Amino acid sequence: MTTVQRKSFGSDNHTGVHPAVMEAIIEANVGDAVAYGGDLWTERATESLKRLFGAQGEVYLVFNGSGANVLGLGLLLGRHEAVICAESAHINTDECGASEKILGTKLLTVAAPDGKLTPELIETRLAGRGDEHFAQPGVVAITQSTEYGTCYSLAELAKIHDFCQANDLRVFIDGARLANAAVTLGCSLAELAAQADVLSFGGTKNGAMGVEAVVVMGKADGANARYLRKQHMQLSSKMRFLAAQFLALIEDDLWRQNATHANAMASRLADGLAAIPGVDIVYPVEADAVFARLDAKHIAELQREWLFHVWDEPGSIVRWMTSFNTQAADVDAFLASIAAVAETRS
Amino acid sequence: MTTVQRKSFGSDNHTGVHPAVMEAIIEANVGDAVAYGGDLWTERATESLKRLFGAQGEVYLVFNGSGANVLGLGLLLGRHEAVICAESAHINTDECGASEKILGTKLLTVAAPDGKLTPELIETRLAGRGDEHFAQPGVVAITQSTEYGTCYSLAELAKIHDFCQANDLRVFIDGARLANAAVTLGCSLAELAAQADVLSFGGTKNGAMGVEAVVVMGKADGANARYLRKQHMQLSSKMRFLAAQFLALIEDDLWRQNATHANAMASRLADGLAAIPGVDIVYPVEADAVFARLDAKHIAELQREWLFHVWDEPGSIVRWMTSFNTQAADVDAFLASIAAVAETRS
Amino acid sequence: MTTVQRKSFGSDNHTGVHPAVMEAIIEANVGDAVAYGGDLWTERATESLKRLFGAQGEVYLVFNGSGANVLGLGLLLGRHEAVICAESAHINTDECGASEKILGTKLLTVAAPDGKLTPELIETRLAGRGDEHFAQPGVVAITQSTEYGTCYSLAELAKIHDFCQANDLRVFIDGARLANAAVTLGCSLAELAAQADVLSFGGTKNGAMGVEAVVVMGKADGANARYLRKQHMQLSSKMRFLAAQFLALIEDDLWRQNATHANAMASRLADGLAAIPGVDIVYPVEADAVFARLDAKHIAELQREWLFHVWDEPGSIVRWMTSFNTQAADVDAFLASIAAVAETRS
Amino acid sequence: MTTVQRKSFGSDNHTGVHPAVMEAIIEANVGDAVAYGGDLWTERATESLKRLFGAQGEVYLVFNGSGANVLGLGLLLGRHEAVICAESAHINTDECGASEKILGTKLLTVAAPDGKLTPELIETRLAGRGDEHFAQPGVVAITQSTEYGTCYSLAELAKIHDFCQANDLRVFIDGARLANAAVTLGCSLAELAAQADVLSFGGTKNGAMGVEAVVVMGKADGANARYLRKQHMQLSSKMRFLAAQFLALIEDDLWRQNATHANAMASRLADGLAAIPGVDIVYPVEADAVFARLDAKHIAELQREWLFHVWDEPGSIVRWMTSFNTQAADVDAFLASIAAVAETRS
Repeated sequence: MTTVQRKSFGSDNHTGVHPAVMEAIIEANVGDAVAYGGDLWTERATESLKRLFGAQGEVYLVFNGSGANVLGLGLLLGRHEAVICAESAHINTDECGASEKILGTKLLTVAAPDGKLTPELIETRLAGRGDEHFAQPGVVAITQSTEYGTCYSLAELAKIHDFCQANDLRVFIDGARLANAAVTLGCSLAELAAQADVLSFGGTKNGAMGVEAVVVMGKADGANARYLRKQHMQLSSKMRFLAAQFLALIEDDLWRQNATHANAMASRLADGLAAIPGVDIVYPVEADAVFARLDAKHIAELQREWLFHVWDEPGSIVRWMTSFNTQAADVDAFLASIAAVAETRS
Repeated sequence: MTTVQRKSFGSDNHTGVHPAVMEAIIEANVGDAVAYGGDLWTERATESLKRLFGAQGEVYLVFNGSGANVLGLGLLLGRHEAVICAESAHINTDECGASEKILGTKLLTVAAPDGKLTPELIETRLAGRGDEHFAQPGVVAITQSTEYGTCYSLAELAKIHDFCQANDLRVFIDGARLANAAVTLGCSLAELAAQADVLSFGGTKNGAMGVEAVVVMGKADGANARYLRKQHMQLSSKMRFLAAQFLALIEDDLWRQNATHANAMASRLADGLAAIPGVDIVYPVEADAVFARLDAKHIAELQREWLFHVWDEPGSIVRWMTSFNTQAADVDAFLASIAAVAETRS
Repeated sequence: MTTVQRKSFGSDNHTGVHPAVMEAIIEANVGDAVAYGGDLWTERATESLKRLFGAQGEVYLVFNGSGANVLGLGLLLGRHEAVICAESAHINTDECGASEKILGTKLLTVAAPDGKLTPELIETRLAGRGDEHFAQPGVVAITQSTEYGTCYSLAELAKIHDFCQANDLRVFIDGARLANAAVTLGCSLAELAAQADVLSFGGTKNGAMGVEAVVVMGKADGANARYLRKQHMQLSSKMRFLAAQFLALIEDDLWRQNATHANAMASRLADGLAAIPGVDIVYPVEADAVFARLDAKHIAELQREWLFHVWDEPGSIVRWMTSFNTQAADVDAFLASIAAVAETRS
Repeated sequence: MTTVQRKSFGSDNHTGVHPAVMEAIIEANVGDAVAYGGDLWTERATESLKRLFGAQGEVYLVFNGSGANVLGLGLLLGRHEAVICAESAHINTDECGASEKILGTKLLTVAAPDGKLTPELIETRLAGRGDEHFAQPGVVAITQSTEYGTCYSLAELAKIHDFCQANDLRVFIDGARLANAAVTLGCSLAELAAQADVLSFGGTKNGAMGVEAVVVMGKADGANARYLRKQHMQLSSKMRFLAAQFLALIEDDLWRQNATHANAMASRLADGLAAIPGVDIVYPVEADAVFARLDAKHIAELQREWLFHVWDEPGSIVRWMTSFNTQAADVDAFLASIAAVAETRS
């Protein structure tokens, strides 16, 4: 319940708003505009996002990541259908059961190493299809980059997409950190989107104040999206202030610059950790997160000065995240603290 | 799908953000802060709101009015219960069925003149209590100020509240425009809140960018509020930017200044209309809205130049709304246009 | 909370089970059978029902009328859609809000004289289509015969069906008393079914112990019906005992005989009432129900001896229902009681 | 899709109806009776069940096991709460996601050896309580006897119940086969019920045609049970025919006789299997089910003649169930077939 004096490594949403985004918000505060998205900012932002993603369907702006995930899944799920996802998926572990609550759907989870599903893992949850006693999977939900800071390669995504198409499953990508993945893979957002039926694109963690986009690719029927967004309480009245945020992120590929910087800071952190004994990186560092195992006492000591989350208490694993405005000096200071702590006897 | 050149009289959410609110947002963009409300802005805003409302329960910030209504109702409804409301209630006519969708509740509507319920009207929907075939009302939802721009007096609210307490019904107030009502009644927010179990307090229409508060008074059990807010996808990650908006509105009673101005502009409009033949005001003007009946041709002509909604097409009734930043000159120009149009033969 | 000594005129489900249905149940109790509908009785019953209705889709047996209505609507509703129905519809007034609860849908009600919708009445609820703030109707639900004991003619049904097809609306018929309508209209079940996309066919009120069928006509997609039935807790494990009931009702058109008799008893009652002063029949008697207005004191007096429901307390209207096993002598005795009561001063 | 010539070992609901139950149904078919449970049969059955269970709350009859589970959980769950259960729980694996769909709740599953939860296993799902991002468990659901044919001892139940009370969790027992457990433990139903807040009592698998009871013990608030039952489409109109079934099962403790016989037949089967090489019993046989591992080819061969389910295809495990009307000769014939098959080379 306190603000943080030093840079937080707790989450990429501990950070504030990128100056260019703030500027766009301020500039949008001019005159009156039709509410609920009937304004020019929204028109321009959604058209730009459609182009960026190569979407034949529409783009819908919503308030936050849970809103984007639940709307996206809702567009793809038959009334009776279930979702296959990794146990570590944000929709399974971090949204208080919103998908079950709002969509009435069941999540069929799979223990996924590195947080990544594969056709083989997905297949383990297909038993019982056609049998009315079993929950019937209709959608596979993957996260890119994953909750463990790892990335699916384009080839891995394509394999999943092909498998899903061959098995009457639709693909949803939770792209709260899609920008980070695009940077890691050196690919366009459209290349990622081509492997999904519906996906979200996160603005908030990338430098926005609070906005996410739900992108409907050509294959999905998004006719009900506007109504579901409204029912899900995700339709902003003064929408121009959401749209303006994306306009800023899109201009000059700011989203890519921001993600590039955040990823670089995570790499810098990982590189520095390599030299510190007693600290093990537990997942490949492929986005803006570093998961590390270190002595529980050292964790406690570090937390007196720095803000971050213990991810797995019994496993003694922490999550350290960077963001668009993490400075190299922040990372270095953090590394120095970690090194100092690690030297103490455990 | 266009921005408006002239001042809009279409809605109090066609307006932008009050400069002081924008300033507060900008100022909140400093350093890192714990996400999801664990920051100092949120602590200060919710504490201030609790004091303003005399709430013994907590205050929860959410994104928008539908979010506030559905959360507020959800806190008060038993799993099987229904809601009594006016036919004209926003939850019934303007939220795409969100309450039914998210809460699984039934709305038991009453045709309410001037948009206001009374104990007698509420009583018409109590038939069948205790009979499992009938939907069982558990909550009465009223709107203050109403969707027709009218206000319940404190005495009227007290009568409803007393009736509800005597009949095992809880009271929810949709306060998207509560500020306007407080101004009209010359009362405090606490005096209004004392007649409710849970209520919402609208920031957005009052000058915020987008934030509403759900206020739990002493009598309601709000233990599940935090979880429901999360499940309802209404928990903002960078919450400080929502909290900052309320901090600005609370400081120096800006909320009251804004509502006072908006109400005054509506009165100025109503006063001016009195002198224009062929324009009838259909509801008492007690907040920031004027509902008027005029010739359909005249409506069409006016809409070429000005932005506003036809409320009742067959009845030829329009809604004209003002806001914190409607200028007297805007009203006068609008009145001149109306007068000019009204002079033409219908 | 008591059993009734004399014949009840309270409801067509106060009656017991037709002897032929009971016989079929007893005969089905032989050996083991695959559960959940994988038995020969179910196969034969659903095939017979498909033929009777001319259904290209499948037939699903469920436990009761609410189960049939909610499943039927669920098959036709998009995830965000609402239902247009008469205010007097069973789904609106007698199911405790099950449709809102289970389907999350909103019922858009219309005051319908005689309980019957028309294209004109339906049209009054189409305002706001395409506007995401309004609930979006996707299905029109009608009841045949209606809750007021009236019947739609085939021509009236066809008009509604044509209107719905022209307006992207699907038609659901609540056929809890479809048999009574078929008798009144002198038509086949297939002729009735041709005007619907999905409909229910009531066994229970017709003489069964407890079973209803949901019939999917060719135009509707029933692929998810089996799963929804299971999720709705309407899949019977020892299904053969449900199927056997329909087999009995179908054989020798017992359903038609039963409905013919029930309707005839209602007519006999109506005819007799014509001669009794102070008793007014308020709806055309076109099925197995008679709605009558008589003095409140007379109602109270009659209820001391006979079981029936007051339908409209302030209007002093009662509902008298007959069934397959109401005897002419029962009706005559009841008429004698009514006549005796009616003679007393009010 | 065929009836079975020989006795089925597929499920205890492949069997028909016990003669005494059928007799009771036939006898209930006399005269008219108030619908929806306002009849004498229902009054007597629910009063008897209340006494049997020592329930201070009420007893509610429903159609089937899923109906009982979802209603029972619904009575105990706060609007936002989740359920802790074994991975193998019927509500998790065999109800097509009905709990998620109807209650909007999340199931927090635990891998439970022998299908039995323990305080230690339950505790593994309590992480994140009080944190709004995590699903918040409110109910622990256990099955007695379990889906693996095992039984919790009274001491094991008491430990769970104590743990739950100490941790603000309520206990629901899925008692679809509670009778079998009572027989195995040699205890009363009341002794089992004392360890639950709400529990179900299965009639169907015990010899009924189709009826289950939801029993509300003193500690739970069942005020909304009647309304939820109706909304869940589980309120039978001709309820006397459900009630009559329980009256038969209660008289002379027929439920206990039936379960005793079924359990004995399972023991006979297990005893016989001990002498057959290549067949391993994988769970303690403590109710009416035997889970056995045998060669996949042998399974296939047996299924040509006998009806039963392969429970775990890759594990080569089958489930064999007995019932009240399995005869010793059936078991012996089945054993002979198994022995004959087992002798063949795999």
